[in-house]
Amino acid sequence: MPLPQTVLYPPFNILRLSHVEYRVTDLARARAFYVDMLGLQITHETDGQLYLRAMEERGHHCICLTQSDRAEAGHLGFKLFDEPDLDKAESWLLEQGLEAVWTEKPFMGRVLQTRDPYGVPLEFYCKMDRLPPIHQQYALYRGVKPLRIDHFNMFSADVDAAVAFYNQLGFRTTEYTEDQKTGKIWAAWMHRKGGVHDIAFTNGLGPRLHHTAFWVPTPMNIIDLLDLMSTTGWVDHIERGPGRHGISNAFFLYIRDPDGHRIEIYCSDYQTVDPDHEPIKWDLTDPQRQTLWGAPAPRSWFEEGSLFNRAELKESQLKSQPIIAP
Amino acid sequence: MPLPQTVLYPPFNILRLSHVEYRVTDLARARAFYVDMLGLQITHETDGQLYLRAMEERGHHCICLTQSDRAEAGHLGFKLFDEPDLDKAESWLLEQGLEAVWTEKPFMGRVLQTRDPYGVPLEFYCKMDRLPPIHQQYALYRGVKPLRIDHFNMFSADVDAAVAFYNQLGFRTTEYTEDQKTGKIWAAWMHRKGGVHDIAFTNGLGPRLHHTAFWVPTPMNIIDLLDLMSTTGWVDHIERGPGRHGISNAFFLYIRDPDGHRIEIYCSDYQTVDPDHEPIKWDLTDPQRQTLWGAPAPRSWFEEGSLFNRAELKESQLKSQPIIAP
Amino acid sequence: MPLPQTVLYPPFNILRLSHVEYRVTDLARARAFYVDMLGLQITHETDGQLYLRAMEERGHHCICLTQSDRAEAGHLGFKLFDEPDLDKAESWLLEQGLEAVWTEKPFMGRVLQTRDPYGVPLEFYCKMDRLPPIHQQYALYRGVKPLRIDHFNMFSADVDAAVAFYNQLGFRTTEYTEDQKTGKIWAAWMHRKGGVHDIAFTNGLGPRLHHTAFWVPTPMNIIDLLDLMSTTGWVDHIERGPGRHGISNAFFLYIRDPDGHRIEIYCSDYQTVDPDHEPIKWDLTDPQRQTLWGAPAPRSWFEEGSLFNRAELKESQLKSQPIIAP
Amino acid sequence: MPLPQTVLYPPFNILRLSHVEYRVTDLARARAFYVDMLGLQITHETDGQLYLRAMEERGHHCICLTQSDRAEAGHLGFKLFDEPDLDKAESWLLEQGLEAVWTEKPFMGRVLQTRDPYGVPLEFYCKMDRLPPIHQQYALYRGVKPLRIDHFNMFSADVDAAVAFYNQLGFRTTEYTEDQKTGKIWAAWMHRKGGVHDIAFTNGLGPRLHHTAFWVPTPMNIIDLLDLMSTTGWVDHIERGPGRHGISNAFFLYIRDPDGHRIEIYCSDYQTVDPDHEPIKWDLTDPQRQTLWGAPAPRSWFEEGSLFNRAELKESQLKSQPIIAP
Repeated sequence: MPLPQTVLYPPFNILRLSHVEYRVTDLARARAFYVDMLGLQITHETDGQLYLRAMEERGHHCICLTQSDRAEAGHLGFKLFDEPDLDKAESWLLEQGLEAVWTEKPFMGRVLQTRDPYGVPLEFYCKMDRLPPIHQQYALYRGVKPLRIDHFNMFSADVDAAVAFYNQLGFRTTEYTEDQKTGKIWAAWMHRKGGVHDIAFTNGLGPRLHHTAFWVPTPMNIIDLLDLMSTTGWVDHIERGPGRHGISNAFFLYIRDPDGHRIEIYCSDYQTVDPDHEPIKWDLTDPQRQTLWGAPAPRSWFEEGSLFNRAELKESQLKSQPIIAP
Repeated sequence: MPLPQTVLYPPFNILRLSHVEYRVTDLARARAFYVDMLGLQITHETDGQLYLRAMEERGHHCICLTQSDRAEAGHLGFKLFDEPDLDKAESWLLEQGLEAVWTEKPFMGRVLQTRDPYGVPLEFYCKMDRLPPIHQQYALYRGVKPLRIDHFNMFSADVDAAVAFYNQLGFRTTEYTEDQKTGKIWAAWMHRKGGVHDIAFTNGLGPRLHHTAFWVPTPMNIIDLLDLMSTTGWVDHIERGPGRHGISNAFFLYIRDPDGHRIEIYCSDYQTVDPDHEPIKWDLTDPQRQTLWGAPAPRSWFEEGSLFNRAELKESQLKSQPIIAP
Repeated sequence: MPLPQTVLYPPFNILRLSHVEYRVTDLARARAFYVDMLGLQITHETDGQLYLRAMEERGHHCICLTQSDRAEAGHLGFKLFDEPDLDKAESWLLEQGLEAVWTEKPFMGRVLQTRDPYGVPLEFYCKMDRLPPIHQQYALYRGVKPLRIDHFNMFSADVDAAVAFYNQLGFRTTEYTEDQKTGKIWAAWMHRKGGVHDIAFTNGLGPRLHHTAFWVPTPMNIIDLLDLMSTTGWVDHIERGPGRHGISNAFFLYIRDPDGHRIEIYCSDYQTVDPDHEPIKWDLTDPQRQTLWGAPAPRSWFEEGSLFNRAELKESQLKSQPIIAP
Repeated sequence: MPLPQTVLYPPFNILRLSHVEYRVTDLARARAFYVDMLGLQITHETDGQLYLRAMEERGHHCICLTQSDRAEAGHLGFKLFDEPDLDKAESWLLEQGLEAVWTEKPFMGRVLQTRDPYGVPLEFYCKMDRLPPIHQQYALYRGVKPLRIDHFNMFSADVDAAVAFYNQLGFRTTEYTEDQKTGKIWAAWMHRKGGVHDIAFTNGLGPRLHHTAFWVPTPMNIIDLLDLMSTTGWVDHIERGPGRHGISNAFFLYIRDPDGHRIEIYCSDYQTVDPDHEPIKWDLTDPQRQTLWGAPAPRSWFEEGSLFNRAELKESQLKSQPIIAP
């Protein structure tokens, strides 16, 4: 199946991925992971919630940790260009027969919540409280020195369909893996903000969140994080890496939070603002697509992911598809 | 004077800066500088011209070196979103009473050339020949490992006016220096592509090109370049740095090509895709705005720049303004 | 068994490891690996041999590649303090009932060859031709930017005995792994030159050379090498890493040359010149001793090594010892 | 004057530089500099003194800060090989007509104090309390991540004489600057421990301590320190750098403590354990000897240094020598 054509003038203007909620079963332990170890900054704190931002972000938060009975991912948040775009989003979603629920959220004003056709909970907003810059307060930098949220990666039971859906919203594919036996897209990386991706889809039991990624300055910061995790009781939370991805050419590390939510530490992908930027196709049999240096990913990386709050897995589709890449 | 409001829906859609022509008096020597030493890749070569691209670029070239009697800068090139934008550009320029000259250029199709109201030669195009990716051909990386063109910086005799003009075209100011005594903008950094800038203006004898910047992976590559230049006969071409800018927070080095054209090597600024991203104001008396670490720039850095081909300097305005920052 | 006491005033003064010969079955291919890819510099070349040095070395060579029918390691070379030490070495070896054969070698003058009690071929010399420094000829740096030879690592069928032998020669143990079940030393790292080691022994089918290590400036150079190997046909020659060793705290990568000889790329261990520097003991069951970050080494790393020229394996001992670490 | 011959079998065995006392006028402020900002670790603390070590050191301290009325440097400390060496040192010093005063110092046992012929206070010892390793406690790393003390640099009114004196003690010259007009040695770098230097002498008003240097992992840590100092009130304490020295090829930064004592942050020099390692000669007129990249040092760097406690400056010699390098 050929890659579907990206809509150049989408129905509403999504600027970028923006934030995510993780429901965690032990907020104190999650705080030790995200704040004390990774180095995210607390911007607001209540009894049951922590709002965090990375060092270069001016928006109020990129991640919200919520104490919960069950470890789950909440809505994936996207920032729209302006207020009229929010209204256009509502119209379009309703036209597609999708949910479009208005809510008010702290620090964000009105928020439009929906689910994509595969069950992934999304929310759109336009203005989040802006905070003073801290990127030159170097005394605050800790851990991996996280600079900004970079992307979401999801397991999808039908990557072809997911790509077609998000193409309509103006997400452009930068790289993808094709299963040459079936002609289907195995995995795809799609962007709005001008990097390799804001969102990616990988074939597997979906909808589930595979990981959220944070951008860091250089590979040296990832080495520093590995040294720190290895000597502060977090060594078992290192899942995969460090390495360089074939796809995206980024330097990466995958770690798991205390509830198993997967975080990617990521740096140095490339600029993709040109609308005629050609997607790069990889073959599913090429091991260098995952790690340019040839090292395989562990089984857990292919199988495990975060369930979305109140989303049903597409188990029927699962039966006909392997969830482990060859 | 308050910073003028950026037009959110500009008359035509400029994606990003794209390319520049440097006229050089000794093409072989320029090649030694840009290709053998810096590490740019040759994509086309004629008797009198060299076309070059950086390692992550898919467009045919980001710099064109032209053998010439006189060292000058040619047109500053910008890529537009699509073909209709090119026509909208023509209409808008004519409305403003500015030149709008169509030409055909190799590798680029139809090109619309103009001058801004201050004499800076600009050209707009939509499609440049796309080349196969080489960013994962690591055997080709040399010198500073240049990844992509990042921005142009110009001397301007009236920065307030330049900012107002480019704001109309959708360039958003990310940081600026204000002269608190006069209330005027001393310097401004403005972007389209989502980084700190595509273009910047500094108070001085204009119009002149202060520098063109290339993005590199990490500060270590800049250190490698300094070691290489220092031991291969280019030590006198190191002008300023390395250091970290207060403005932009980028790590930088300024070097001069054999004709004196200034090149900045640049890395690690931040993402600015939000339209509500607040500009950061710096005071002209704050020495850390230029170099966060406090080291002053040399006099040449404030005084010297490349003349634009057939552009007249605004000498009258010069009399009332110092060209050296305090 | 307690760690044997190091002799503080050894019978002759070994300064440091110095050089090794690798016999290779395809000299052109070995050259592609060591020179074109790794970045070692050729200092002498004949029909059947290549002499190489690393960037900071003033001695004529640290590695000699010899075209041969069979892939093997030759003598491990050590530099002595002065000429009288060479004569003292001869006396001592003869006292121990070991070989002591004088030979003349190109670039090295008189050389004393022997075998340790376990069959490892050693050679001692005092003066090697000194070459002009090239460490500031940055245009020559390539590949991983190898700075100097750092250490040899050998499989030994009786590490306790090997440690006792080399202790008599003034090698001091800096770190070691103990098998708590047997009380035996599983592996030991021993130095003369003031770093973590000049030589190391690992339990296994011996005598075999496990690897020769080269020191490089920073972990970034190892990442550069991985990118280069991965995209120039050498991806299958990456065996283990990158990672940080628990033992030595060094950042490492293991690669295999075209004949399977193993090379370690190594940086950032610590200074050990104090004679009262306490050895660090690791337990065989601690997986972080090998890789601080927890990643296991592949089976090949435990099993495969270079045979020494004309050395007999101690197969009888092998039967009672596993060659794979638990 | 030719470089004097180093004594290969010195009268007693100095292993390495070890520690220094700085007398400071505000201990709390000095603590903010050395501990909170630079990242040295406190190993002992009294009302008027702080003992500090760097991350890889096992000896009790490398720097002792003493509250005092006057900012001065105390004894430069050197570790000897064993106890008999301490007694040999006493004999030799007395033979030379120099002081040899035994004292007991906390954490160090018996200590032999003297002054070199030019008034520099030295102390020798053999055993300092050994502390458990902390180099793999990565949560403790802060600031510039100092790994170990590296060298002392002194102003000397007669560098030729100083070099001759320390040569007798087995210090070997690795690099030196010659004033070709006078034939005199302008500056010299001399080592015992196998790096470029344990001590260095620069022509100037002496005896004064020019700086004490600390070794750090990579140039990136120096960049991190600059960012930190620049944004935590220490920007005026940055004196020179970052840069690469021509001499030593090390990457460096010079900073000043609250009393003006100069600290060098230093990394990546080369190994010099061979006794036949040839010294590199630089000419006084070569600006790249100081900074390979060509940037000049500021005037303060040539003129200012720490007085030694109770040492008289050699003012008579000063009259005939410039203290500023050309």
